[in-house]
Amino acid sequence: MSKVEVYGLKVKEEIKPGFDLAEAIVREAERQAGGLKDGDVVVVTSKVVSKAEGRLASLNTVKPSPFAERLAASLGKPAEVVELVLREASRIVRMGKRVLITEDLRGWISANSGVDVSNAPPGYAILLPIDPDASARKLRDALSKATGKEVAVIVSDTQGRPFRKGQVDVAVGLAGLKPIWDRKGEKDLYGYSLRIKEIALADELASAAELVIGQAAEATPVAIIRGVSYEKDEKAEAKDLQRPRPEDLFA
Amino acid sequence: MSKVEVYGLKVKEEIKPGFDLAEAIVREAERQAGGLKDGDVVVVTSKVVSKAEGRLASLNTVKPSPFAERLAASLGKPAEVVELVLREASRIVRMGKRVLITEDLRGWISANSGVDVSNAPPGYAILLPIDPDASARKLRDALSKATGKEVAVIVSDTQGRPFRKGQVDVAVGLAGLKPIWDRKGEKDLYGYSLRIKEIALADELASAAELVIGQAAEATPVAIIRGVSYEKDEKAEAKDLQRPRPEDLFA
Repeated sequence: MSKVEVYGLKVKEEIKPGFDLAEAIVREAERQAGGLKDGDVVVVTSKVVSKAEGRLASLNTVKPSPFAERLAASLGKPAEVVELVLREASRIVRMGKRVLITEDLRGWISANSGVDVSNAPPGYAILLPIDPDASARKLRDALSKATGKEVAVIVSDTQGRPFRKGQVDVAVGLAGLKPIWDRKGEKDLYGYSLRIKEIALADELASAAELVIGQAAEATPVAIIRGVSYEKDEKAEAKDLQRPRPEDLFA
Repeated sequence: MSKVEVYGLKVKEEIKPGFDLAEAIVREAERQAGGLKDGDVVVVTSKVVSKAEGRLASLNTVKPSPFAERLAASLGKPAEVVELVLREASRIVRMGKRVLITEDLRGWISANSGVDVSNAPPGYAILLPIDPDASARKLRDALSKATGKEVAVIVSDTQGRPFRKGQVDVAVGLAGLKPIWDRKGEKDLYGYSLRIKEIALADELASAAELVIGQAAEATPVAIIRGVSYEKDEKAEAKDLQRPRPEDLFA
């Protein structure tokens, strides 16, 4: 038998720029999950990381370009939001009737460069952290300093995907664990050597965390996953999950 | 606090055609997870469902078509395997140097129509269940009959995806739960009504299950997820997760 536990941590305070996420996680883990333990994976939504880092854009200070105005009209979105999406984008991957799929400045391909007005204070949009891997590293260091425990940290984001309806949470930042569990070369049940078997462990952890993370009124922006075995890696980044464009049949 | 538990169930027997999966799950749940409970989500890999249903193809009885021979040469795969991939496909979505992305007979878009030689007996390939939703319904009925408990069942498959490296587990069959948690119209933290928020819950459950499911020598083909709230739905199918082609910017 193997068992994995996923704890959702409620955070009562409103998360404003400068908010000390590490302090809140240590405190709420103590209260709601018996404290942080070695090997725990702490998953935090990019939304709260962005809020704590002040990655909010006031819409009425944004001046849309003529191109943003034109896209906004065809997409049925506010021009200020489209302007922010373009500022956060390195290229447009696809344009649909109502959807703008971009590659963002961090290399992630998703809708609207991750710019979101939901769960943002009125009149504001939330942008992704400038460098979610750096955010994860910083948070991991603070958690380690406060508790002496060795944990991994994942910054998650909610994304749609081709072919399948609905959104799932994936990792856009991480620290302390190798995001891909490479099982190539392992033997299968019949001794056959697996040729292509690379599990996107960090994405599966982000999805598992979403099972307890409420993104609306419940305010559960943090999950602790306990009991998962993963490969420790001090240098790993979520960017290791980005498929290089020449190898991608769809990008 | 909210807490979700994911139990991995080891199954020691080799799974052959006719194997009684329900009996094994009831027995091992008793032994390894305190028995099945109302509200549990039972996740089973499509691999073992296929094996129990006899969805194995003996490669030396397969006669490849000239087209399969030609593709096989360019893909570097055995022509018999490519023939099976084509037999299981309704169309080819993309062809790469080493990869064949197809839409399969069930409507899923994935590599090789889900045909796999890993974890198959030597000389055989494993095909997806003919109708994984029907497999899930049948298994759910048998579990209910044996235990009197009301559970949901997900049949999972391991798939790659565009843009992101590595594979994750997703739902290709299910019974008893609504695969998408539709949160459109719910209010966010600031009272803003969410416009696009449809969580692919069944896929996140499949990914969470993969954290305990060993696909190689460990032989842990079943997971029980406990503590997740989901919408019960007697008529739901995994096919509800298929994005209609006209709405897909990548298919």
